[in-house]
Amino acid sequence: MNEREARLALSCVVEPATPAVTEAIEDFGAEAVWASLISGGDSPLCRRARSFRAEPVQAVAETSGIRFVVPGDPEWPPRMADLGGCEPVNAMTGPPVGLWVRGAGDLGALATRSISVVGSRACSPYGETVATDLAADLGDAGQCVVSGGAFGIDAAAHRGCLASRTPTVVVLPGGLDQAYPPAHRPLFERAAEHGVLVSELPPGQHPTRSRFLSRNRLIAALSVGTVLVEAAVRSGARNTVTWANCLRRVVMAVPGPVTSAMAYTPHRLIRESEAVLVTQASEVLELVGSLGGGRNRPASPHRPTDELRPDELRVFEAVPARGARSASELSLASGVGLAACLAILDELVDRGFLIQDDQWDWRLPPRSPATSRTPSQS
Amino acid sequence: MNEREARLALSCVVEPATPAVTEAIEDFGAEAVWASLISGGDSPLCRRARSFRAEPVQAVAETSGIRFVVPGDPEWPPRMADLGGCEPVNAMTGPPVGLWVRGAGDLGALATRSISVVGSRACSPYGETVATDLAADLGDAGQCVVSGGAFGIDAAAHRGCLASRTPTVVVLPGGLDQAYPPAHRPLFERAAEHGVLVSELPPGQHPTRSRFLSRNRLIAALSVGTVLVEAAVRSGARNTVTWANCLRRVVMAVPGPVTSAMAYTPHRLIRESEAVLVTQASEVLELVGSLGGGRNRPASPHRPTDELRPDELRVFEAVPARGARSASELSLASGVGLAACLAILDELVDRGFLIQDDQWDWRLPPRSPATSRTPSQS
Repeated sequence: MNEREARLALSCVVEPATPAVTEAIEDFGAEAVWASLISGGDSPLCRRARSFRAEPVQAVAETSGIRFVVPGDPEWPPRMADLGGCEPVNAMTGPPVGLWVRGAGDLGALATRSISVVGSRACSPYGETVATDLAADLGDAGQCVVSGGAFGIDAAAHRGCLASRTPTVVVLPGGLDQAYPPAHRPLFERAAEHGVLVSELPPGQHPTRSRFLSRNRLIAALSVGTVLVEAAVRSGARNTVTWANCLRRVVMAVPGPVTSAMAYTPHRLIRESEAVLVTQASEVLELVGSLGGGRNRPASPHRPTDELRPDELRVFEAVPARGARSASELSLASGVGLAACLAILDELVDRGFLIQDDQWDWRLPPRSPATSRTPSQS
Repeated sequence: MNEREARLALSCVVEPATPAVTEAIEDFGAEAVWASLISGGDSPLCRRARSFRAEPVQAVAETSGIRFVVPGDPEWPPRMADLGGCEPVNAMTGPPVGLWVRGAGDLGALATRSISVVGSRACSPYGETVATDLAADLGDAGQCVVSGGAFGIDAAAHRGCLASRTPTVVVLPGGLDQAYPPAHRPLFERAAEHGVLVSELPPGQHPTRSRFLSRNRLIAALSVGTVLVEAAVRSGARNTVTWANCLRRVVMAVPGPVTSAMAYTPHRLIRESEAVLVTQASEVLELVGSLGGGRNRPASPHRPTDELRPDELRVFEAVPARGARSASELSLASGVGLAACLAILDELVDRGFLIQDDQWDWRLPPRSPATSRTPSQS
């Protein structure tokens, strides 16, 4: 059994985002982990592994036009790797062992310019209008809208994106051979025409509570930024925002009337600086701007900034060529949360990329790596 | 002519917030400034001064029940002094030379627990409802609501406060012998029953464009915090917010539907960290909490924190007795803008009041001035 076959088998017997399995794969590789499960003790997981047969799953996948994508494949979204260094949320962690994909789009390519738009199932007409318009405008700007295919905001986001004739990515909490919710089967078929349906779970698997939560981490990981449109006090969309913040994605929220219960969570996130207030697509694009089109960047010789992590690079690139910026301005411009931004700024000062002036603002040093800085991609 | 008479005369011939006059009064006193105007050259201001007669103004004031309050009077609001150190806005600066006051309330006492609620004249029904409810809830919590008596949000704020049987402060852009707008005469009469009407301008003076702007600085200066409820792209209420930020007051804004033009300025201020998003009175009270009731603090022996400026004290008091806080949390809790907050935090570290831990958060040092810290007044 090779690496790909081992990952396929693991995706069929292991629950998504199980920390122990994730870590073992990272340390020993999927083949070794699968071999140890087969030869392991009498745990339910080992028994499931020993009774697993790939053929029935592969047969359903083939019939339904579902492919299995693993790290290293051209279609594998590079951003998934960020889940490797991400703190656990609800005791879940790690990148998926593989992704089941259906549709005419190329997941890897779509994920390079993608914004997730998420929110409540029981949204208001206001939320539905805002999500649809926002997604359509993002689509017009060439951004692929990622969401979870649920009723309410998710569906409005997919529909808005499709209305702008832009591919959309639907990340589902169960196997792609079935539609969840079933009423959205026509929507998913339309999404598959130019975009993709994605799931961590093999055909035949149903959504469960924990699978909704692990699915949310894929929505956050697949996109450059996440926009929350409406969510009441308790909402699954809040969980997607938590993942997006852990992944240091750009987290945004749309405000609404304070008299609406659906505006509670967006307002709270904005108030507590967990999300930046956005009112329209241009503001979203501005916030994620410096990240777009990263994949199309021409190959270039080694630069000092090559050693920077993506979040460090975002903060560094937010510093203007001339003049200084405050930490809050850089946090806003880079989309990196303020606390993280401050830590990064200090690190960048230590490493000689930036200096802090006597107004406590940050700027490039007089003779700086800026001369060899990656040109802005926005 | 004594200091009070000189200030009364100056308030009748000098336009509010004229920087040169403000500075001259600060440096030489009102009597000397008045004397120099009288004996001065042929400028329009000197001519106005020489032709000024106090008796007619005083007669109208007496008939209308208007009193003139100057610094040092028991009723003079101590917060007015903050205008002395404030950067000019629209080339205006400085505390008023005196205040004309009408009504049963004590302006100085009311200003110790006061929140201004301001916004657009052409507000939406949503904005009117939110302003009324917010002002009523603030009134119920014992806060006096300050506003400008205009149509729309201002009037809704005064009415909400009056509905909770709490005194309100109306700061008018012209003389208190007339009502501006005239349609609000009944509202102003009700406000004067327990609260006060205030103006920098003597009886007989009409509002002008610049007097609206100088009036806005009094609204900001008279209150601990300012809440913006609704304002379109261009709005006079934006000017009040600018003053409030210059005065380092707590600046707050209420969000609304992104589809409403009236939500533009609140959203923009929140997005650009010029205002904190608030959705209800409890959040306003939380933000201004540590400032309330400062006047009723019992006399106490000298403490290390006595040497701190008011904004430094607010930041210092936002640091919890145990545990650490990030700069953004401290900025929110203290109501001090982030850039200023960061500068203050560094200053407090230098002076031994705080330490910054390895998570880049701020906390009290192991053996700290906290043992002698001013008890929280909230």
